[in-house]
Amino acid sequence: MLRLNSRDPGFAQAFDRLVRDRRESDDDVARDVQIILGDVKNRGDAALAELTRKFDGHALVNEDDWRISAQACRDAYDALTPELRDALELAATRIRAYHEAQKPEDRDYVDHVGMRLGAIWRPVDAAGLYVPGGRAAYPSSLLMNAIPAKVAGVERLVVVTPTPKGQVNQLVLAAAHIAGVDEVWRIGGAQAIGALAYGTDRIKPVDVITGPGNAWVAEAKRQLYGVVGIDMVAGPSEILVIADGKNKPEWIAADLLSQAEHDPAAQSILITDDPVFADHVADQVGIELAMLPTGKTASESWNTHGVIIEVESLDEAPALANALAAEHVEIAVDEPEALFRAIRHAGSAFLGRHTPEAIGDYLAGPNHVLPTGRRARFASGLSVLDFMKRTSFLAASEAALAAIGPAAIALAEAEGLPAHARSVAVRLGQ
Amino acid sequence: MLRLNSRDPGFAQAFDRLVRDRRESDDDVARDVQIILGDVKNRGDAALAELTRKFDGHALVNEDDWRISAQACRDAYDALTPELRDALELAATRIRAYHEAQKPEDRDYVDHVGMRLGAIWRPVDAAGLYVPGGRAAYPSSLLMNAIPAKVAGVERLVVVTPTPKGQVNQLVLAAAHIAGVDEVWRIGGAQAIGALAYGTDRIKPVDVITGPGNAWVAEAKRQLYGVVGIDMVAGPSEILVIADGKNKPEWIAADLLSQAEHDPAAQSILITDDPVFADHVADQVGIELAMLPTGKTASESWNTHGVIIEVESLDEAPALANALAAEHVEIAVDEPEALFRAIRHAGSAFLGRHTPEAIGDYLAGPNHVLPTGRRARFASGLSVLDFMKRTSFLAASEAALAAIGPAAIALAEAEGLPAHARSVAVRLGQ
Repeated sequence: MLRLNSRDPGFAQAFDRLVRDRRESDDDVARDVQIILGDVKNRGDAALAELTRKFDGHALVNEDDWRISAQACRDAYDALTPELRDALELAATRIRAYHEAQKPEDRDYVDHVGMRLGAIWRPVDAAGLYVPGGRAAYPSSLLMNAIPAKVAGVERLVVVTPTPKGQVNQLVLAAAHIAGVDEVWRIGGAQAIGALAYGTDRIKPVDVITGPGNAWVAEAKRQLYGVVGIDMVAGPSEILVIADGKNKPEWIAADLLSQAEHDPAAQSILITDDPVFADHVADQVGIELAMLPTGKTASESWNTHGVIIEVESLDEAPALANALAAEHVEIAVDEPEALFRAIRHAGSAFLGRHTPEAIGDYLAGPNHVLPTGRRARFASGLSVLDFMKRTSFLAASEAALAAIGPAAIALAEAEGLPAHARSVAVRLGQ
Repeated sequence: MLRLNSRDPGFAQAFDRLVRDRRESDDDVARDVQIILGDVKNRGDAALAELTRKFDGHALVNEDDWRISAQACRDAYDALTPELRDALELAATRIRAYHEAQKPEDRDYVDHVGMRLGAIWRPVDAAGLYVPGGRAAYPSSLLMNAIPAKVAGVERLVVVTPTPKGQVNQLVLAAAHIAGVDEVWRIGGAQAIGALAYGTDRIKPVDVITGPGNAWVAEAKRQLYGVVGIDMVAGPSEILVIADGKNKPEWIAADLLSQAEHDPAAQSILITDDPVFADHVADQVGIELAMLPTGKTASESWNTHGVIIEVESLDEAPALANALAAEHVEIAVDEPEALFRAIRHAGSAFLGRHTPEAIGDYLAGPNHVLPTGRRARFASGLSVLDFMKRTSFLAASEAALAAIGPAAIALAEAEGLPAHARSVAVRLGQ
């Protein structure tokens, strides 16, 4: 853990290093991914079978090896304990309600020259959702990706998920049932992304691919950006907690660790104006780490990437937060509003002392797929808009074209595009 | 020009080839671009000077060599003929009005369990806009990119544009003045994109980069996607005209050629239910091509990529249009509404007989930066949203956390994330 104090002479430099540290793998996976994508594009299902045997130890032979049926998802749902079933249903209901309100409105109006103008939003035909296997196979991620797609109106929602050595995550299947996923394919890695983008004999291509994955998955999405739409390239998760000394150190320590337990590359940062409180939080993190079942991962994250920044006043926090542009920002003070308004760059903000970030991870309603690695400067969390696109439209009456057409002709001629000019001029009888 | 008839036995196959033909350069520019970007990242302004001398024949020495001043833009504006000045101002006013209405609304509400939820939209701090030099240096493109950024509230809007052998396009400068561009740098190519993304000593980095460019520019944007936000990767332009036999062949021929004159790789497609009309349009295209000052480019486009598809009924058109997912779709019939509603995938639609696509290129109001190469399946035209991002927020009262917290604990435990569970549980006194 790194401890900084904004009054120290080396602070600006140390903070700048922190801002620039992207914690993202620089390994050259690009070439491997390119080869895999080419293979899937050229050989389709045969390549999928070969790569899945190699990477996942899973043989794609019979229909059941390739796909998980809707019935299997329903069975997984029926087998849930009542407590978990209710929790997943509550999450789905709340996520659905929040995202329903994101649906954009169409526009259609006639302006003062008689030009009809507007825009229509429509869902994409098909979306693919990557669900990681193993440690990071989270039913909550499935809900957070699938529900916005369904709310958008996507008719065909396809999940791909690796099943290492044939192992299936029953909770994820149950979540797929709740979310109304249409197809579940037992493939993963860059090859699964390639299959979704290019299509194979068995798997029809999709238009948009979302969902978290490892470096190969992320690179495959990046390489296929433009062939399909993708959600933001994601890096390791991060949290910035801005807290005054009136918080309970146990609460803030738990929040920092909830981020750290995700991934050794995750980052937890505390900004506080109370050095004694900072000490207590640091101590408490140490105590909790010793007890935490995920302590190994969390320790590695906290020791390597954890930061506590002491400031003289929390008024300094927004400028630091804007430079960090963190995925999650907790503002644990009595009156968080002024600080929140001053923070321009954040994926999601958690206001007040009773809003741990984890409540947003599961079921508050807003999406937990958020921009990481300072991308909140320009990117937003996943939303219904990621599964829709807009068609603008215009319709000129004769009078409208007569009113604004001559200016278009002048501009077309100035740009050296005479056929553009002519397409307007012929309609004006010129 | 390729002529197809939907009743021919080979039609499905021929049409499928048309849909799959992306007309995009497969040259391996990726490696060149990677080297250039690395060079700019490492050596900054020195690399820019070297590459600009090499590719543009322009020496970056004095301040005037690097930048075009606000005064120079104002001078270019003052030197416009009244006709052109009025035309540019009309375009800017109409584009601004259309984009103002795109500004998204914030959300802030308290739900029935007492959870405050919402989302705030904010502009990015800085945006970079690429303006090509030479043939494709269009003032209309500058307006279409710059105005949405300014409407979004972007404080720093930076234009980069190559000035080959020092040559500056006065119309583009005048448009920069009208649009309120803050900086104009005389650099181009992949190196300009690298400078905008990474920043140099002279040029501060931006958060989002938009604007058209050649294959190197497009590849540089693709490679830097994630470091900055970018608009959609763009390919050659295309138009699909759906027209019945009651149109004047001259009008439709002009529309097809207005696309073809952009670029030898541009594509113009006509779908009609009237074979005699199709013949007349084809003849008229031939006549116009002989007279057109841009005939060389337009001929190459029309001869290589032009297509006329005869159908038995225009009811067949929407399915074909959806497969093509064209950038521009004209529906030149008396009652375009039903066809328009059935076309799900299009960048922009131009309805009725008096709406040539060119009117949208310049000043109808909607953006002319639109998804090409079938990307209208998942992508939208440029908008104010491309220059903004959303921060979701949540604030739980004690009661709200008590109401939904236990379900979050159950899910966190099921996912094997005990610190997540604990961050909620400690607040519930557990």
